[in-house]
This record gives sequence, structure tokens and C-alpha cells, in this order.
Amino acid sequence: MADPLRIALAGLGTVGGGVIRLIESNGALIARRAGRPLEIVAVCARDRAKDRGVDLSRYAWEDDMTLLAERPDVDVVVELVGGADGPALALARRALGAGKGLVTANKAMIAHHGMELAELAEAEGAPLKFEAAVAGGVPVIKGLREGAAANVISRIYGILNGTCNYILSTMERTGRDFADVLAEAQALGYAEADPSFDIEGIDAAHKLAILAAIAFGSRLDFGAMHIAGISRIRAADIAQAAALGYVIRLIGIAETEGGETEGADGEAGGTGRLHQRVQPCLVPRAHPLAAVDGATNAVVAEGNFVGRLLFQGAGAGDGPTASAVVADLIDIARGDTGAPFSVPVAQLDTLDPADPGHRLGRAYMRLTVADRPGVLAEITAAMRDAGVSIESLIQQGRPEEGGEVLVAIVTHGGPERHVAAALKLLEGSASLAEPPLVMPLLG
Amino acid sequence: MADPLRIALAGLGTVGGGVIRLIESNGALIARRAGRPLEIVAVCARDRAKDRGVDLSRYAWEDDMTLLAERPDVDVVVELVGGADGPALALARRALGAGKGLVTANKAMIAHHGMELAELAEAEGAPLKFEAAVAGGVPVIKGLREGAAANVISRIYGILNGTCNYILSTMERTGRDFADVLAEAQALGYAEADPSFDIEGIDAAHKLAILAAIAFGSRLDFGAMHIAGISRIRAADIAQAAALGYVIRLIGIAETEGGETEGADGEAGGTGRLHQRVQPCLVPRAHPLAAVDGATNAVVAEGNFVGRLLFQGAGAGDGPTASAVVADLIDIARGDTGAPFSVPVAQLDTLDPADPGHRLGRAYMRLTVADRPGVLAEITAAMRDAGVSIESLIQQGRPEEGGEVLVAIVTHGGPERHVAAALKLLEGSASLAEPPLVMPLLG
Repeated sequence: MADPLRIALAGLGTVGGGVIRLIESNGALIARRAGRPLEIVAVCARDRAKDRGVDLSRYAWEDDMTLLAERPDVDVVVELVGGADGPALALARRALGAGKGLVTANKAMIAHHGMELAELAEAEGAPLKFEAAVAGGVPVIKGLREGAAANVISRIYGILNGTCNYILSTMERTGRDFADVLAEAQALGYAEADPSFDIEGIDAAHKLAILAAIAFGSRLDFGAMHIAGISRIRAADIAQAAALGYVIRLIGIAETEGGETEGADGEAGGTGRLHQRVQPCLVPRAHPLAAVDGATNAVVAEGNFVGRLLFQGAGAGDGPTASAVVADLIDIARGDTGAPFSVPVAQLDTLDPADPGHRLGRAYMRLTVADRPGVLAEITAAMRDAGVSIESLIQQGRPEEGGEVLVAIVTHGGPERHVAAALKLLEGSASLAEPPLVMPLLG
Repeated sequence: MADPLRIALAGLGTVGGGVIRLIESNGALIARRAGRPLEIVAVCARDRAKDRGVDLSRYAWEDDMTLLAERPDVDVVVELVGGADGPALALARRALGAGKGLVTANKAMIAHHGMELAELAEAEGAPLKFEAAVAGGVPVIKGLREGAAANVISRIYGILNGTCNYILSTMERTGRDFADVLAEAQALGYAEADPSFDIEGIDAAHKLAILAAIAFGSRLDFGAMHIAGISRIRAADIAQAAALGYVIRLIGIAETEGGETEGADGEAGGTGRLHQRVQPCLVPRAHPLAAVDGATNAVVAEGNFVGRLLFQGAGAGDGPTASAVVADLIDIARGDTGAPFSVPVAQLDTLDPADPGHRLGRAYMRLTVADRPGVLAEITAAMRDAGVSIESLIQQGRPEEGGEVLVAIVTHGGPERHVAAALKLLEGSASLAEPPLVMPLLG
């Protein structure tokens, strides 16, 4: 058998421990599949003394993480430290700069610095891989980069954050409200003490930006992402959606203008502008994503020959994430040093962000209004004046909250800018107790 | 840009035409992703004059298919002729023997001759790829061979035949009977004039055998496959399953003994024996496979670190199948010449077939019995004597069929050999109007 692929592991949290356990448990089988053994030679973490349930004595220890990148006995550095910048980025630059491979689960770093790192990898002929950064154990980067490589992709979308999906599906199942379910998720370890990256949609947006770059052959553009989280969703919204035949899911969606936008030219690639957004959506109950419960992730890619592909599995956890990290290592052991974003960075397109207002679709709007005469007339007049056609409107009292009532509106299909214009007309109205919540219906 | 990958195409049916259209439509994008253009240089089909809606004048034409394998201007032969033996096999042997790559959508040929062809490919250092042979456009071979490569797979199962799934989901939706829906499917082109390969489960078994070899690192063993088709399923079975909260799907399932079998030793890999079977199963309505309707294919793989992965998409059709063929070509253009079955043939295990009687689970039984006193007593006594524990029993008259009634039984969990023993006791009984139909409940 050929020489082992020699690995340095930076970061020994749950995923790092999982990688060690995986390589120890399945080592013989991995060596058969990879054509050579994977061998961890050196590790680094903050606290050497901490009990991680794995025996570290056989590996060299570095106190200074960046020295992992200098070791002549290391072929690939696995970065599991996290954080978009700081030590993780320093290590990544140093490893690639030294011509070593880099495998990372760090979505924030790739979303923000993926172009720079991929350029460096390409210049050095070193592999850079990040399957574990998107959808945990689900091989969706491979599915896009290779499995669907023959296709023009028009749209990629999915459930990319397990914490949000756990919260939303638990709210749906139990009828409880957001804050209550979040607190429980935190107690159970499904949500971080500071959950804002998850519940505000940032984490899903990092993943979506990476998928979009690969799917559309375009430069990463995290700054162009429209992001809304789930913290404003109420049990009443979920109940209302259910009554209409929908569930609410946090969906990341990237698509080229065309198809469901105004002024589609009908050509593959559309106008060359790209929509990228993460926001809660109403998903029809018959859609495959509606059945995705708990911490599961699922991604749909729509290609011009393959049609609709679905990839689904565990989006987080030490086992699934380690599975993706080691799959990358096996690819490297087998000799895959292809462009990290499928095509070399120099050949990626720069796609201008599309105007979200051009997007066509139906929307759900929830307004919290004062319980007094004339309010509905004011709202419906604003809709009419903005060109929003109302499909259904339900007004529901919330007696417990002193005179406020909820109005839930579902619009007919139309450009999103009409909905935005209607909200603009209502802005500052004394009738509204809080800004309206708008969610698109997944088409 | 590097030299083109030069392709010869054997077979110009719907998939062959799809491959030409795909490479013509998406050629520039494919070249960017593959790092070099894909160029079709020569083609061959039975009838040169036939109008296929694509311009063949730019390609060399060979009347003798095997000559494609001799052409010095060809790097890879794409075999889309079909058939386990005959011209397809002759071409495959000749192409690989000449050191050329081979890409094929031919599940029958790979299921029967995959070991010989892979050995030949490995000896010649030539790539052999067959993503399109399983689940059409869904990159499930890649998902297993690479995406889940770090895992011990305990079970792989799924919906592998679009024709059967179309028929079953249409029966479910319309309440119509098998023969009626089959005739419609034939009229619509969803089923062949001779549908036996599909409806008797042979086609799904070919695909399952290929998946099992890759998932378990074992030699192909099509002969060990237990196969039952869907032609005996009645509208009444589907209605009965629905009443119990299940749908009926033709499921291919391969699993190592252990887990849901008797005498599991709890170790990954179990006893080293392999169950492989294709048969209609009752699938709980909440299971992701229950929502798979129409000609869609879906495969679930269960790994010891990644958990449950689901791959889903179009299982047939010119576009999806061409997408998989061209994905293989892109992999080859990128330099992937790895072992076709993930590990070299010489290192594949020979797994003995497991005794299906050891399998533990619940079963649905439908018996057509004479409408006279004592019949139920005879049936339930046989169950008792064979050690089968009955969870529910429903007797339903079919007045239109002269005195016969249906008895539907769902058993508690137990070894399948008990069910087989009960049926043995009832064999030849004058009370049974036809042999019982038995379907497992998917666990």
C-alpha cells in the first residue's frame, strides 16, 4: 500500500474528537477505499490537559497552532478551530502557503475568505476542501461540484441550519412560542448560549454563499446576501401557515434572475444577476423540504438536464461532520486536487446582485394592528395602491394582548417590490403595533 | 486549456441523443468545470438514417460498433446500447482492453459482468464509470463511493425503479388496480411494451447489486438477490396499507446481517453475511421514501458516523441520465481513474448471502380465502403453531368475486422464518384461493 496521508488536526472540540474516533474506528476500511492509510501525526488545541475521551498520546502536540503548517511530516492540515478570521485564517493561509492541503469545516472563513484561500491553493497546487462546512455530513458540495457538474443550475435552495429547523419544527409540533422553544433548545445543547448566528440566519447564509459560488460558477459574494432570521415568528404564524397547507422553514435560496423573476429572458443563466437570500418561507406541505424535521439539513439543486436533485441528512454533530471531513481527506488521498470552487478562481464570474424587488411570487404578511374601526380599510387600501392582489385575508383577535389583533394576508403572485411598496405606504401608521412580518411562499 | 477528452458514443436512443444535446448546450460551462472540453468524435447506432433531432454530420460514423474502441482518436467510449451481454459487453471489453475509458448506463451489464470489467479496467489503468446505471441522474454512486467513503455502511435501500413507483403511486392516488394502471403507463411511455424487467423487480435488483458492492466493499452477487415484483399487488392491499398508516413501494434493500437480524453480534459488519432483496414493502407514511411519487428514485444509506443520508431525483429520462453520463465524463476529464467499485476488485470481500429467514421485522400478509366457517381458525392456528404473533387482522368481503374474502394480517416483530413456516403450514389448504402475498413493513 502507498504511503499514508499524514494529517495535522487543529482544534479538538466535538468535531475534532469525532475525526479522531472515525479514523481510529474505520481506519482499515478507509485505507482500502483511499488506497492508502490516513494517519494523524500532530494535533493542537487550547487545553492539552482536557479529557476528550480519545487517546492523544500517539500524536505529536503543538502549542502553537500555526506550527502545524510548518511540520515536514504533515501533508494536510485539518482546521476545526472556527471563526471567520483570527487563528483559523492564519493557519489556513500558512498551510496552503506551505503547499500543504487544507480541509476545513469552517463555513464563516470560507464564505468570507474562500476566494483568497482558493487562489492560494490553486497557485500552490494544494488541495483545499470544505465539504463539512455545508450541511454537515451531507455530501452536497460534491453533489454540486461533481455529481451535477454537467448542468446549468438555475436554483439551489434548502434547509441549512439545524438549530432553526429544530426550533421551527418543534414550534410546529407543540404549538409553543419561539422564546420558549429556543430556551429548551439551549438547555438541550441544540442551540448555542449566544444563538444569534443561527437564529438570525448568518450561519445559513455562510453555507448558501458557498453553495451559490459552486452552483453558479460565480465569485463568493456574502455581502450581497439578504438575511432574515426566525426570531419574529410566532406560534400564530405557524398555525396560520398550517391552516393554509404550509409549514414554515428557514430557507436559503440562491437563483439566477430568470424563471421566477420579472423580465426573464428564458435563457439558461438569465440576466446574469444573482439572488441570494436566507429567510423564513412558507413551504407547501407536499414539498420534500416540508417533511424535513429536527436538526436535519436538506438541499435541492435544479439543473437544466438533471431536473430537481435532493440531498438530505444530518446537518451537524460530531459523527456526520467528521464523516464529511474524512471524505475530503479520502479524496485528497486519492489524488483529487481540483479547483476548490469547481472552476479556477480566475475563471469564476462576477455576478451582480439581482434586485429582490423583481422577484415574482406569493407572500404571507402578518400585521399586528390596533383593534379599531378602519384599520382593515387602511391596510387593504395600501395593498390596492401598491398593486398587491390579496388572495386571502384572515383577522384574528389576540384578546390576551390588550386590543391588538393579527391580520394574516396571502397575496397572489406578483413582484416583491409591490409588497415592499405596500409596506412603505403603511410605514409609521398608528394602526400598526409593530413592523409587519413578510415571508415568501416557496414556489 | 488542455486537450479535449475525445468521446465515442455507441447507441443513439433517447439517452444517446440526450448526451449529444447536453454536451452541445452546456459545452462551455462543462469545459470550465472539467478543465478541458468534452468532444464527441465518433458515433454508432443501428440506423444511420433515423431522425434523432440532433445533427450527427460533425461526428465520424462507424457501422461496426466495436470499431469505436479501436479508433486512435478516442479516449473514452460511452456505451448506451443496453443488454447484459451481446454487443454492449463486447464493446465494453474491447474498449477497456484497448486502454480506453468506458462510461455506461447499462445496469444489467454491470450487475452481471461488473467484476470482470472492473478488473480489466484496473489492469489497464483505464477508467470505468457507471453513475447513470443507478437512479438515473441522482449521483448516488458518487455519494456512496466518495461522499460516504469514511463510513461503515450498515444498510442501503431505496426506490430504484421509476416505472414501479409510478404504477404504485398512481394506484394509491386513484384507487385503480394494477393491470389498469400498467396499461395506462404503457400507453404513456412510462412502461415498456414488455414490462417484466421493471415490474418483476429485475431492473431494481440490478441497481441494488451495484450499490451493495460499493457500499459493502463486496463482490457483486446478483445471483444471491431475492426478488419479488409488484404485479400481485391489488388496490385492496394499498387501501389496507393506507388504513394502517403505510404506503406500498417497491424497495431494494441491502444490509449486512446484524442490527435487524437475529444473532446480531453488534459489531460493524455484523456476521459478514449480506441480505439483498427487492420486494414491495409497507413504508410508514412519515418515512422520507413514502413521499416519493411518480418516476422519482430515492436512495437511503446508513453509515456508522454520518447517520442516514438521502439522495433523491429523477430516476430515468434522457436529461437526467445524460447528466449522470456526462458527470462521469467530467470526472474522467479531471483525472479520476480510481477503482470503479471504490476498492480494487482484488480487495473486495466475498460476502455469503444471509438467510432471509433470520431477518427480524413485522410483516403484512394478505390471504384470499373461501368465505366459510373455520377458515379464520385454520389461519390463526397456523400462525400460532409457527410462532407468529398477530398484531392486527382484518377480514374484508369481496362480494363481487363469488364467496372469496380477503384477510389482511399485520404481525408483531419476529424472524421472517416464522412467517415462512406459517405459510408452509397453510400450503395446499383448500381454504386458500391463491398463494398468500407477504410484504415486510420497512423498519
